[in-house]
Amino acid sequence: MPDISLNRQRKLEVCFSPALLPLYQISESIVVVIDVLRATSSICYGIENGAVEIIPVGSIDECKSFSNNGHLLAAERDGAVVNGFHFGNSPFHYTRDKVEGRKIVLTTTNGTQAIRQCANAYKVVIGSFLNLSSLCNWLSEQEQDVLLLCSGWKNKFNLEDTLFAGAMVNRLKGQYGSLCDASIAAENMYISAKDDMREFLRRSSHSQRLAHLHIEADILFCLQEDQTISIPVLDGNRIVRLQPEEVKVFG
Amino acid sequence: MPDISLNRQRKLEVCFSPALLPLYQISESIVVVIDVLRATSSICYGIENGAVEIIPVGSIDECKSFSNNGHLLAAERDGAVVNGFHFGNSPFHYTRDKVEGRKIVLTTTNGTQAIRQCANAYKVVIGSFLNLSSLCNWLSEQEQDVLLLCSGWKNKFNLEDTLFAGAMVNRLKGQYGSLCDASIAAENMYISAKDDMREFLRRSSHSQRLAHLHIEADILFCLQEDQTISIPVLDGNRIVRLQPEEVKVFG
Repeated sequence: MPDISLNRQRKLEVCFSPALLPLYQISESIVVVIDVLRATSSICYGIENGAVEIIPVGSIDECKSFSNNGHLLAAERDGAVVNGFHFGNSPFHYTRDKVEGRKIVLTTTNGTQAIRQCANAYKVVIGSFLNLSSLCNWLSEQEQDVLLLCSGWKNKFNLEDTLFAGAMVNRLKGQYGSLCDASIAAENMYISAKDDMREFLRRSSHSQRLAHLHIEADILFCLQEDQTISIPVLDGNRIVRLQPEEVKVFG
Repeated sequence: MPDISLNRQRKLEVCFSPALLPLYQISESIVVVIDVLRATSSICYGIENGAVEIIPVGSIDECKSFSNNGHLLAAERDGAVVNGFHFGNSPFHYTRDKVEGRKIVLTTTNGTQAIRQCANAYKVVIGSFLNLSSLCNWLSEQEQDVLLLCSGWKNKFNLEDTLFAGAMVNRLKGQYGSLCDASIAAENMYISAKDDMREFLRRSSHSQRLAHLHIEADILFCLQEDQTISIPVLDGNRIVRLQPEEVKVFG
């Protein structure tokens, strides 16, 4: 393990929208993509449950183009499973019995779009409350700067991704240099909401937008900390499980 | 005065960066441009103190081009007065003895850039803690949707503009429909910080960035509520004082 004390000036930043990503230098940074309701939670859960790879794609047509390759196809738009697809972005579509040993192609309104915008990052990993501790522990051991990228809703700021970014800042901040304003704001919000995040999010536009979809169980599931230990990582165009030896290589 | 009760679904939104402005429909909205440290505070103070007009321009060269017209020229970059200019964006450059009866041309790092991006709004007004109550009272009487545009720092989120947006949401929210997530976040931050905003902002990147400029007096001045009553409004390419009769015309 490297002597992290030599790296006190590592930067930890938060970006509230993929539309602001061009403002950040990410070629030497680890980007954590965040879309906790629900894409990145489902990716964490699916990878934990043995999915071999998850391919994030931008369009429904691109997703369909994999239909003859034995992949599971998953598509969500505006919160709902797209007509003709069996999977969307509910974590309950990503249980072990459904995904173990399978390859999945996934397109969602926000999260998969954000992942695809980070292609030039040093490394792209996937974060959610489900793998919070595992992810923070791994990041602590890396030498790189970290950018927490909130997927938001159609490029607008959202509360749920900011809450999770705030949870990460709260865990990690002592190990990085001075925080950016977005990091301070996210942590401040997390501290004020952490005792009842579900209640805090009831006011959110997402909750109101998705109320008719009856995804309360999904939301409660996605707000649970530390249900998984794997760290999904982008490898080319595929999300796979970060292998333990990589922690040694990079850590 | 119109019966505002008919307009319960007016929208109140917050935009955290000029780079996100294209996500919002503003042609029928009143946009409040916010750059409390210090451009919009100084504009409020200057208009209150009798400046005839303030012309926001994008570049230092454009500002210089007015040098033969008797205008006061004001230019700030990265927090400091630009070499060769007598005025920057300190509110203490906008006292009555300096600006009464004068025309001013102003270019700043963030605020004036944001103002220029709102040209297609229904109306553009200038907000700061200095004119908080006056501005909120006037907005309450308008029928239009409202977008609070935080200028940020070089298109990144900042704390101080968000605090002020949160103060406005806190005053106005009961009169508008459901709040967007950015409005909820801004108000949440304002509530947690309002008892000592100066202390809250000490952690901000702006404070650290500008510490060497010794602008503590400026900051304290800009965080004072209700020092002015005028509402600066964009009229073509000039910011002027909203006339009382306009309240009747539009209210």
